[in-house]
Amino acid sequence: MDDQRKKEWLEQRRKHLSRNPDELAKGIISGDKVALSRGLTLVESTRRDDHEQALEMLDKIRSNPGKSVRIGITGVPGVGKSTFIEAFGQELVENGKKVAVLAIDPSSERSGGSILGDKTRMNNLALMPEVFIRPTASGGSLGGVAKRTRESILLCEAAGYDVIIIETVGVGQSETMVKEMVDFFLLLMLAGAGDELQGIKRGIMEMADALVITKADGENEMNARRARNEYKNAMHLFPPNQNSWIPKAMTCSSYTNTGISEIWDVIETFVNQMTISGYLEKNRLDQEVFWFRETLKEMLIDNFHQTEGISQRVSQIEKSLHSGKGNAFADAKAVMNFYIAQLKDAKN
Amino acid sequence: MDDQRKKEWLEQRRKHLSRNPDELAKGIISGDKVALSRGLTLVESTRRDDHEQALEMLDKIRSNPGKSVRIGITGVPGVGKSTFIEAFGQELVENGKKVAVLAIDPSSERSGGSILGDKTRMNNLALMPEVFIRPTASGGSLGGVAKRTRESILLCEAAGYDVIIIETVGVGQSETMVKEMVDFFLLLMLAGAGDELQGIKRGIMEMADALVITKADGENEMNARRARNEYKNAMHLFPPNQNSWIPKAMTCSSYTNTGISEIWDVIETFVNQMTISGYLEKNRLDQEVFWFRETLKEMLIDNFHQTEGISQRVSQIEKSLHSGKGNAFADAKAVMNFYIAQLKDAKN
Repeated sequence: MDDQRKKEWLEQRRKHLSRNPDELAKGIISGDKVALSRGLTLVESTRRDDHEQALEMLDKIRSNPGKSVRIGITGVPGVGKSTFIEAFGQELVENGKKVAVLAIDPSSERSGGSILGDKTRMNNLALMPEVFIRPTASGGSLGGVAKRTRESILLCEAAGYDVIIIETVGVGQSETMVKEMVDFFLLLMLAGAGDELQGIKRGIMEMADALVITKADGENEMNARRARNEYKNAMHLFPPNQNSWIPKAMTCSSYTNTGISEIWDVIETFVNQMTISGYLEKNRLDQEVFWFRETLKEMLIDNFHQTEGISQRVSQIEKSLHSGKGNAFADAKAVMNFYIAQLKDAKN
Repeated sequence: MDDQRKKEWLEQRRKHLSRNPDELAKGIISGDKVALSRGLTLVESTRRDDHEQALEMLDKIRSNPGKSVRIGITGVPGVGKSTFIEAFGQELVENGKKVAVLAIDPSSERSGGSILGDKTRMNNLALMPEVFIRPTASGGSLGGVAKRTRESILLCEAAGYDVIIIETVGVGQSETMVKEMVDFFLLLMLAGAGDELQGIKRGIMEMADALVITKADGENEMNARRARNEYKNAMHLFPPNQNSWIPKAMTCSSYTNTGISEIWDVIETFVNQMTISGYLEKNRLDQEVFWFRETLKEMLIDNFHQTEGISQRVSQIEKSLHSGKGNAFADAKAVMNFYIAQLKDAKN
């Protein structure tokens, strides 16, 4: 490498490492993965000056919104999410799609496991130039995670990804959040209910646009089909969706690569139908309003909890309520009065 | 009636009509329906001085908490809630129970109908001395309705009712609220899914402790049984409840009085199991904490919305978000900053 080329290379490198919002936005829009990666880091940062730069960058990429299908994928640990996404992602690439995978990992609080933490689980997919995989750093409030994830989606879309997959574990509250930021919600399940189901939260089944029984291969194939039929009947009994989509029940094997392309067919059908009916756009705009309201609520509640003396009072009251003392409404009113007094005092 | 008796009668009458919290509490505890009725009116009142008297009364009845089973009953209009409660209530009375029926009626906003508005629908039940029926005035915020309903439950329990039935329509948000104030949640459904289901909100099925197919008589009996079996299979596929109760699917006819006593058997079994496991008490204490948090949230949000200039800003932003302009998070932050500034200004 001669001096001139070396200099250019270093310059290029420096630019990549730059946090200049304008350069990052340009890099992202040009499809530069390093810029995208740095942009995501900026979005995830909790530092105040990073936050301002992130806003500036987001503002700039809005000129290039991109069009994508946003797919939420959830399921308990052990259902085979990573191998499914590995197979499904390759199917998408073969269909000419650029694919981004973002993961929301609430494991720190709950399951003790880690989604995508072990990147080797998506070895082949991760190596494809058409694919971008990001194990989203989680932690913090649900609202904080939601904000970062939604901003990450925007960055990936600006970078030209056609399909954005949001992966989460179906055990906490995060899947409700994911449902509110995707176009299509896919629930992975295992055949042979019982124990494996213990982890899934009630109410998730009714959120799914499609339910896929994984590991439908070898000896398990019959079981998987039986389970698929049972769920198919069950889902038919659910109240209809607002968009009149009847949730599908399917089987797949990531191992034998069976049923994977059928899942993409279903999603494409869904997207086509919902584009024609206008539901897809309506849903996204509704989601935007939803997040505006949620964010406001969370900010109000944060401001409340950060007020001096509130936390102790609240946890004290909850403790006595748990031991059968007190009155939920009267106690809430007392805390509220204290809060307002504190706000006024803070001014003096 | 001689003068002395007339005077006594008038005195008695005056007491009944009194809003003195102490007298009301005593009257309620002694089982006086007129006192209970007036107590409920006090709880429902939005007048500030009534509110203080209500708190005093609630405080006094706490000395006599009573023991009851709280049952939530929901279903779309037309499923036969009133006739079911008529039959079910009589079954309870035959079992030696005193029964109170409270209704949450969100109809003013949504269905246009009215639960219990037409009292004649529960003619026989309403005439029984062991029964108290109250069409709760609704309207106002969900939190306000929740507060009044929960306080009404306490009054009915203090008055010695063994079973409190909370009736609601399964089309809005009120059933989520009811779920959080009862021990047992019963969903009434019609056989022959399709159109009738349109009204039921998604997610309600997974909340039910028992699902009952109504109108299982005459030509409809076979259909009802078939539907019951389908739902039974479907509910078996749901993720298990925290209390490991497997929701039951049943049929009944309020007309031929078939299957009604079996429903009470199921509820008694549930209550016995959950009393032994400690879940019943734990659930009630959890509900108390839930309502403390909900009430606080609602108070915070109310205070926010009542601040000058907020409402216009919020509806303006929601309008632009709906037309694809703006950014949920940035907009929320701007409104929040405005709110805090207003609070500080209000002090000056």
